[in-house]
Amino acid sequence: MRLSCFFMPVLKEVPAGAEIVSHQLMLRTGMIRQSAAGIYSWLPLGLRVMQKIEAIIRQEQNRAGAIELLMPTLQQADIWRESGRYEDYGQEMLRITDRNERDLLYGPTNEELITQIFRDCVKSYKDCPRILYHIQWKFRDEIRPRFGVMRGREFLMKDAYSFDLDEQAARKSYQKMFVSYLRTFERLGLKAIPMKAETGPIGGDLSHEFIILADTGESAVYCDKALIDKKAPPADLDYESDLSAVMQEWTSHYAATEDMHDENRFQEEVSQADQVSARGIEVGHIFYFGEKYSKPMKCEVQGADGQLITLHGGSYGIGVSRLLGAIIEASHDEDGIIWPKSVAPFDVGLINLKPGNEETDHVSTKFYSALHEAGLDCLLDDTKERPGGKFKTMDLIGLPTQVIIGPKGLKNGIVEIKDRKTGERQELEIGQALAALTGMT
Amino acid sequence: MRLSCFFMPVLKEVPAGAEIVSHQLMLRTGMIRQSAAGIYSWLPLGLRVMQKIEAIIRQEQNRAGAIELLMPTLQQADIWRESGRYEDYGQEMLRITDRNERDLLYGPTNEELITQIFRDCVKSYKDCPRILYHIQWKFRDEIRPRFGVMRGREFLMKDAYSFDLDEQAARKSYQKMFVSYLRTFERLGLKAIPMKAETGPIGGDLSHEFIILADTGESAVYCDKALIDKKAPPADLDYESDLSAVMQEWTSHYAATEDMHDENRFQEEVSQADQVSARGIEVGHIFYFGEKYSKPMKCEVQGADGQLITLHGGSYGIGVSRLLGAIIEASHDEDGIIWPKSVAPFDVGLINLKPGNEETDHVSTKFYSALHEAGLDCLLDDTKERPGGKFKTMDLIGLPTQVIIGPKGLKNGIVEIKDRKTGERQELEIGQALAALTGMT
Repeated sequence: MRLSCFFMPVLKEVPAGAEIVSHQLMLRTGMIRQSAAGIYSWLPLGLRVMQKIEAIIRQEQNRAGAIELLMPTLQQADIWRESGRYEDYGQEMLRITDRNERDLLYGPTNEELITQIFRDCVKSYKDCPRILYHIQWKFRDEIRPRFGVMRGREFLMKDAYSFDLDEQAARKSYQKMFVSYLRTFERLGLKAIPMKAETGPIGGDLSHEFIILADTGESAVYCDKALIDKKAPPADLDYESDLSAVMQEWTSHYAATEDMHDENRFQEEVSQADQVSARGIEVGHIFYFGEKYSKPMKCEVQGADGQLITLHGGSYGIGVSRLLGAIIEASHDEDGIIWPKSVAPFDVGLINLKPGNEETDHVSTKFYSALHEAGLDCLLDDTKERPGGKFKTMDLIGLPTQVIIGPKGLKNGIVEIKDRKTGERQELEIGQALAALTGMT
Repeated sequence: MRLSCFFMPVLKEVPAGAEIVSHQLMLRTGMIRQSAAGIYSWLPLGLRVMQKIEAIIRQEQNRAGAIELLMPTLQQADIWRESGRYEDYGQEMLRITDRNERDLLYGPTNEELITQIFRDCVKSYKDCPRILYHIQWKFRDEIRPRFGVMRGREFLMKDAYSFDLDEQAARKSYQKMFVSYLRTFERLGLKAIPMKAETGPIGGDLSHEFIILADTGESAVYCDKALIDKKAPPADLDYESDLSAVMQEWTSHYAATEDMHDENRFQEEVSQADQVSARGIEVGHIFYFGEKYSKPMKCEVQGADGQLITLHGGSYGIGVSRLLGAIIEASHDEDGIIWPKSVAPFDVGLINLKPGNEETDHVSTKFYSALHEAGLDCLLDDTKERPGGKFKTMDLIGLPTQVIIGPKGLKNGIVEIKDRKTGERQELEIGQALAALTGMT
């Protein structure tokens, strides 16, 4: 993409009202624009990151055997009356009346609707287990939306739902999603730590929040340093194998959010040197809820013996739009965002220091085409702005690699490559630079 | 995907209340499921088709230089008050009040919001022209939603908006979208004919509907046979070149919907032999509207001379979710759907006639892996259903190619390949069959 043809309205000033750094940087880089309180438009730079995040989540859901579908944003109130949550949900639920006076609502989550679909479509135990997921916009009418996309009202969520014949089978589904989340967040360049969460009246040990560490995190978290150094299972893991050992490995160390923290246990179980007290941001939550929805909604299948079986369910959420904010909170410096390679809006930023100069134009175009052919996304700054402004903007938007092409360097056949994260600069001959960027030698 | 692990609830009966064939077939194949009047859940088979359609639209929009962003589903009522459309829009607009008593609405279209974004972000003539688009859910509260996804209330639309300095420049943007639509629909396997549409008070010649021909179409259309045989421009067309000749070529022949039809002109301009009277379905609409929104909303930029310029706009829509119905209306037979290759939910359907039989299991898995590695999506029917039922289901869901793997054939090392569209069957040795399917020899 040539910057002269793109739509990236960078702001010079920190916008008023943006309290946290991710919100400030997303506005300043022209990634988002508020359209109403807690409701954002995703401008091209922001959307590119969101699409990359979505693609990774989708791949890892599919790998774990989950099947994608897509439920609508609006739901009938009646199914929420069936589950008993219509009255309970309170004012965060956006209630709507259509022209025929029917009660609708903008889905804040989808347990009821997926349970209705599964109940209506599946009749036999042979069609279990299943994990179904979708990536769809949700709405929660927060009384005071803030922190940009971190606590917006209209937000994108990946939510998966499992249907199993009994608790033991449901535990397997839970483990699949647990492992899938480890892989997902690692691929997003995040260090996410599963922490035991409230199970409420259901009880049991099957509820975890996935928390990433960031100095600006919303709540305090406590964990064993061992968890921070752990690697997620490899891509070729067999999700049909017994995943208990992986679960065990990740849940046997101390890790707790503020709500669940037990200082005494922390001191007992973790040696002083390994005690990590930090701030965290929740990016995922998985939960086994048993018959909570299937019982009132009669989500049943016929067993091998002809008897009806009430299914056991779980739900598994990732805050997709929230992740953009969370990644920035975890990865930025005073100059701007530092994108992990896997989700950067472009892989490489090319800076043509003197557009209109035959030589720099020629070499810029050469890099642009060659990188494109090697499968890399480039943003080429071919605008008339001064070099200082170009450097600032490129640092601000945080592409992993910058290539600086100026008339002085080109006199010696040289361009400069800068690594955004380390700040390291290298002067290379054009051929060497191209080889280094495309991974060819 | 193995059918035994998939989620494809096929119905044996034609569901009550489904009047048109696409609606019947989408319900029967388990592509969609109604969640409320005119609101559908997209089950995995339907979603796969929708995602393929989306990808083609996106590629062709990008090729034409349009830039993707994503606006939210809910909008503030205030911007519609600015344009003057809030009161005019009538009951089709779903109006919502949030917990703070603010007026929101579920966007039925996005002229106001994109105009607000452009106005707030762009200040200089140097940042024009731009074409911005998004693919997002819309809501129109139809009084009597029907015909499945063809006239639903919550529907997916690709809508693009152009911003130009004057009418002449706007005409160029219009031509880009016109050509992009020709290519898009051709790649979707459709024969779409641009037909002049009402321009209302704006006047001029810049409004076209793109209509596909289908016997079951919603309205009568009349055109010159020459249009039906025309090919869209090639992929390497330079969208920055003068596209007037392409426009001319496509708009110089007679083509009109019922509303715009002039029988006398039709008789005069088209020879009897070339007169086509048919039924059509609207799948796209492009429209130049000048200063209609930019004037009341003050969408202005500073010109080279420092004077403010009110921008000229156009909008360009494709009904994405509607296209699934339209494609089925245009491409089915008494046995079910016949998907064009470019949008089929899977490229190949493998039928294992006797799961549990060592030989058929082995060869089925061999095909499954080999086709997957060749980049083809497969659906492998590995269920215990009887052969007759398997054949029926495979025809019903309309994958372009079927491979039938049974113990009898395998005794002679042979499988059967069936082309869904032509019904042609071929018996081939395993190696030949694999080579034929993967395009290798």
